[in-house]
Formats: sequence, C-alpha cells, structure tokens
Amino acid sequence: MNIKYRCIECNRESPPDFFRLKCEESDYSCFDIFYEKKEHLSEIHLPVGSEDVIKLGEGNTPCISLKDNFPKINDLICKLEYFSPTSSFKDRGSSILISAAKKNGVLEFAEDSSGNAGASMSAYASHAGIKAHIFAPEITPSSKTDQIKMFGAELHKIPGPRQNSTEAVKKFCKETAIPYVSHNYNPFFIEGMKSFAYEIYEEYGELVSDIVIPVGNGSLTVGAFKGFNELKVAGKIKKIPKLHCVQVKGFSPISNKSNNIDWEFDTSSSTLAGGIAVSDPPRINQVIQCVIESEASAIVVDEEDILNWHKKIAKLGILSEITSAAVFAGVESLINMNKINEESVVLVPVTGSGLKDLSNVMI
Amino acid sequence: MNIKYRCIECNRESPPDFFRLKCEESDYSCFDIFYEKKEHLSEIHLPVGSEDVIKLGEGNTPCISLKDNFPKINDLICKLEYFSPTSSFKDRGSSILISAAKKNGVLEFAEDSSGNAGASMSAYASHAGIKAHIFAPEITPSSKTDQIKMFGAELHKIPGPRQNSTEAVKKFCKETAIPYVSHNYNPFFIEGMKSFAYEIYEEYGELVSDIVIPVGNGSLTVGAFKGFNELKVAGKIKKIPKLHCVQVKGFSPISNKSNNIDWEFDTSSSTLAGGIAVSDPPRINQVIQCVIESEASAIVVDEEDILNWHKKIAKLGILSEITSAAVFAGVESLINMNKINEESVVLVPVTGSGLKDLSNVMI
Repeated sequence: MNIKYRCIECNRESPPDFFRLKCEESDYSCFDIFYEKKEHLSEIHLPVGSEDVIKLGEGNTPCISLKDNFPKINDLICKLEYFSPTSSFKDRGSSILISAAKKNGVLEFAEDSSGNAGASMSAYASHAGIKAHIFAPEITPSSKTDQIKMFGAELHKIPGPRQNSTEAVKKFCKETAIPYVSHNYNPFFIEGMKSFAYEIYEEYGELVSDIVIPVGNGSLTVGAFKGFNELKVAGKIKKIPKLHCVQVKGFSPISNKSNNIDWEFDTSSSTLAGGIAVSDPPRINQVIQCVIESEASAIVVDEEDILNWHKKIAKLGILSEITSAAVFAGVESLINMNKINEESVVLVPVTGSGLKDLSNVMI
Repeated sequence: MNIKYRCIECNRESPPDFFRLKCEESDYSCFDIFYEKKEHLSEIHLPVGSEDVIKLGEGNTPCISLKDNFPKINDLICKLEYFSPTSSFKDRGSSILISAAKKNGVLEFAEDSSGNAGASMSAYASHAGIKAHIFAPEITPSSKTDQIKMFGAELHKIPGPRQNSTEAVKKFCKETAIPYVSHNYNPFFIEGMKSFAYEIYEEYGELVSDIVIPVGNGSLTVGAFKGFNELKVAGKIKKIPKLHCVQVKGFSPISNKSNNIDWEFDTSSSTLAGGIAVSDPPRINQVIQCVIESEASAIVVDEEDILNWHKKIAKLGILSEITSAAVFAGVESLINMNKINEESVVLVPVTGSGLKDLSNVMI
C-alpha cells in the first residue's frame, strides 16, 4: 500500500506513522492519508489490505425515504447508519483504524470519546484481541458505557465537559506510555468513513444533491468529502453533493467559524445531543474546507428543535439517538433559509440508535 | 394475490381472513398461508403486493464468521439480525403483518409480546398511522418498553408470567372490539420471516448444513422452513438445512414434546432469556414438524450457559440480547452430542441487540 501522510494545515508530506498524531510544524495539524498510486482505481482506496480488514458487519446501511413528510423538498432519504455492529456510524471508521492498529502491533491503547466511538473501538479492539482504555465524560448515557464494558474495554469516567476526557487520556498516555489511538486525530479512522460516500454513489448515482450531517469533530463530513472526491477524480461523478454541517447551540465552533462569526466556548453549556457536544475539534479547518468546497451551508440548531424532531421521527418508525435528530432540525432550517428547495434530493445519515440514550429521553 | 388459509392441524382450506385467528375445527389451529399459483416463481412468495409493503430497512442482514472460535465445526456463521429497524429479527414479520393490516383497513389493534415483537409492531404501525396497544409482561426490560412508548403505542404492563399478557390482551379485545393482531397467530407474520431463508440461499447457496434457532413461539423456525421449502419446490435447492431448535430450561414445551418427554409448565420458572420464555406456543406442532422434516434436533440449554456465552460473544464484538446467546450454548451442546461436526457449516441468527436488555446484565 503506497500511502503518505500529509498535514492538513501546512501540507507537508511524510511517511505514514500510525502513532504520530500531529505535524510538528503547525497548530491544528492532524494528518490526512493520500495514495501515491495515481491510476483511477475502480474501488474505494483503503490504507489497509482487504485481507487485513476486521469486519463485524459494518457498512451497507439501508436507506428509506420520508418524502411524504417533507413536501417542500424533492425527497428526504434517511441512511440508517445505526444498522451497525455497535449501533452507530462510527463502526465504519473503527473497522479500518483497529485493523491498522493490529497491523502496527498494538496490544493496548487509550482513546477518548463521548461514547459512540468508544463503544465502537472497544468492539473491534476486543475482536482483534487488543485491550482498550476508553475515557468518556461522566454524563455519558449508561447504555454506551455499558456497551464499552461488555466489550471488555476499561472505562475511565471523567467529570466535566467532553474536553476534560481528551486532556485526561493525553495525560494517561504520557504517564503510562500506552499509545493514544485517537479516532479524531488518526487519519485511518477518516479513511473508514469514506464508504459512506461510495454507498450513496452506488445506490443513487448523482441523484443526491444535498447531505445534511451532524458535526461534532466532523469525521463523517471529512470522510464523505474524501470519498466523493475520489469518485470525482476517478471521473464517476461531476459534482460533490453539498455537505451541510449542523451543530447545536452552545457547541458550534465549526458553523460559527465557517460563517466568520466569533465564538468562544461557554463551559456552562450543555446539550442532550452528546455526540456533537464538541468545543475544540482538531480538524476544524478541514471540515470548513469540505463545507466550502461542496458549496454547502454550516448552521446551528436549537436544542428544543432537536428534541422535538427526535420524537417526531420516532412516530415515523425511526428511533434515533438524540444527536442524530439534529439533521432533521437542520433540514427544516435549510428549507426556511431557502438553501434547499423542491428540486433538492436530500440525504441524512441517522447516525446512532435510539436505544443508546433512551435513559435521557424517558422522563 | 391468490392465497388461501390452511389450518395447520386439520389442513382444511378457507379463504384468507386477516382477522380470523383460528380454525374452529381443531384445538391448536393457527392458519398457514399458501399460494394457489403453482408456477415456480423466481422470487419470494409474499401475500402482500410489493408496492404495498411498508419498509423501514428490515432484512438483508450481514453475516460474519466465528470459524476461528469454533474449531470443532467447519464454520460458524452469525447472521446479525439486530441490524434492523427496531434491533430484532421480528421486523421481518412486522413489515408484512402491518402492511396487510393496513390493506385490511385496520386503524387500531392490540397485540401481546415479550417485548421485541411489541416494539417492532409499534414501529411499523406508527409509520402506517395505525394505533397499537401492546400487552407485555411487567418484567420486560425498560429498553423494550421505552421503545414501544417512543413509537407512540400504548403500553399495557401485565404482572405475572408471559402467558398472562396473552390472556389480558384477549380479554381487552373482547371487551373493546379492537382487533387482536397477534404475531403468533396471524400467518402474515410468518410469511415475513421467509426472507431469512432466501437471504441465506442467496449468500451461501446450499453451503449451510445446519441452522440453530432460539425458539419461543417458533416464528423464525416456521418462516425459515417455509422459505427453504419454496426454494426446494422451485428446484433451487435439493435439501432444507437442519433447523435445530434451542429452548431454555423451564420453558421447553417444544423440545420436550419433540423428544417425546412429558413436560408441564412450572409457574415458578424464570429466565433472563425473555424472548424464549414461552410456555404455550400456539404453533407447537408446526414447529416440531419443521424440526422433524429438516432432520434436526430440538434441545434444551441451561440458563447459566446462555449467560456465559452472552459474555463470551461480547468479547468477540457481538453484543446480543441474552436470549440470542442461547444459540451459542446450543451449538456447543450439538457439538458435544455429535449432532454437528467438522463437516458442518452452521449458521446462527443473532436475533436481538444487546442494547435491549443491558439493564438485566450489568449488575
């Protein structure tokens, strides 16, 4: 596999190093993987040989249409990402990341997560015989932390906002010399997300005009953009669908920066949309670039609208986690802003199962 | 659609009647649907036109192999049935049953369930704009009852063993004249289960020799048998895979009767495998016939073995509900009994998501 790392900020290239998180030259400085082989491959580019990919059934998620419920747009397609080994879209990324970890001889690692990525990484790690330490906020719903424990990972509950878990895991890794295999920094995770784009292309060709994505750290946005871009470079599509970014009030660093509006994190902010409660996403500039290049919008929605939509879609037979419902509030906003209209074929990922945070809903 | 009802006991034929639960002529007397069109159709026979089928993404579940963990048999394939709208295999049946309910003008109905079928029927009903009343045992895990409520159904919690919910719903329906749309009696539900067999044939041809199924009321066994039998009649397969039946100690009417061993329900019996805690399955003779005709075994496993396997498979990245783990205990038993061996390609459905009853596991 001829791959290189490229810093997403300074564009410097370097040989791939699974354990290297950041480029020393720049501030926000994660890596991207790029493929030296320049031919137009007919299949998805992956940084792990197909014989080495650990599979638990991830990907190939089904789509259903809610066209009748959204008469102001041409179609609303829900891609049900919770049809997945650990019931969230993160499994696409974990499959590739943990496969690469195994190839790199990892026997134990640590990671921080709001819950879904932690559960997902734990499942793949345990299947691969790798010990995982998962650092998650104390307020993570018990279904997610129970999943993590059932998969055999060691759970470290960290008080305070999500960012504290990141700081705690970094400290832990420094002290123990256990590698920090972060799904937000490590570019192998992003590569796993690309299959989302390929599946949409395979099912709908170029029919989908807009994709509305809930954004915390933005791995799905970056992965989808990379996937569609590969398809574009290979001559299969002419245009990348608009990749709209939806964040929740109180946690909108990406949408605000994207719209040139000053933003500072208020540590008293809280939300039940825990999957997007991220105040300091390391790939912020890369996510904004995906929004700009796909000519999309980055918006902020209200907590109340998310909770209302969460209930509404359950009545249509889609029980998502609260975070996932943000995209429906987003679609409504984009319609009101006239960013999407009767010609738009809109696709939304339903990123996680409602079984994951029922305890936060049933009061 | 040219279909008829046929009593599973006395074989008398009658015109299909969606609301008729039993044949008056015999005791255990559910109906089976059969198709008058005798040509060898190339597609699955369904009693509802494809344009009328309500779909929420059910079916086409992925398979993964645990070959390395079961060296005494040729292969162990897990078909992950919890990749499903409501995270259980019941969605296959509910899709067809609720589609038929809608065609028959149902606006409100009642049903009894240990939880999974209730959640599943609620989701499809709510998508179809139909009001559902779900009668479930008081001890049903909260994830399942919360699902039912989120989908907008009315939950009726009934104290005592599973059988009490059946009695309560029958009384309710008699008093209110709301139709009893029972997934255990109504043959449309069984027809939805057939896709399980078709998918196995499509993916593996005739490679799978044995299928090990957890049996409560036995809808998956009956549905799988019917599906494979259609494939056999159509000349696509020569032999139906062995459809082994696994029940749990305390709730083994089918396995015991199948082995000609007297059995009586002890009302003090309890199990955490709630999905198969059935003492009086209406299709008992039909299930036994499927076991006999496929030359399979009907066995009983211990609660403790189920709980141990539940933990073991989680460590392999498969977090199932407790009930689902019964099949792994069953595979172990069948190996020990020499019913399956190094030549056997064994498939097990993993019927439900572990997120559904984590509260019963994490103590």
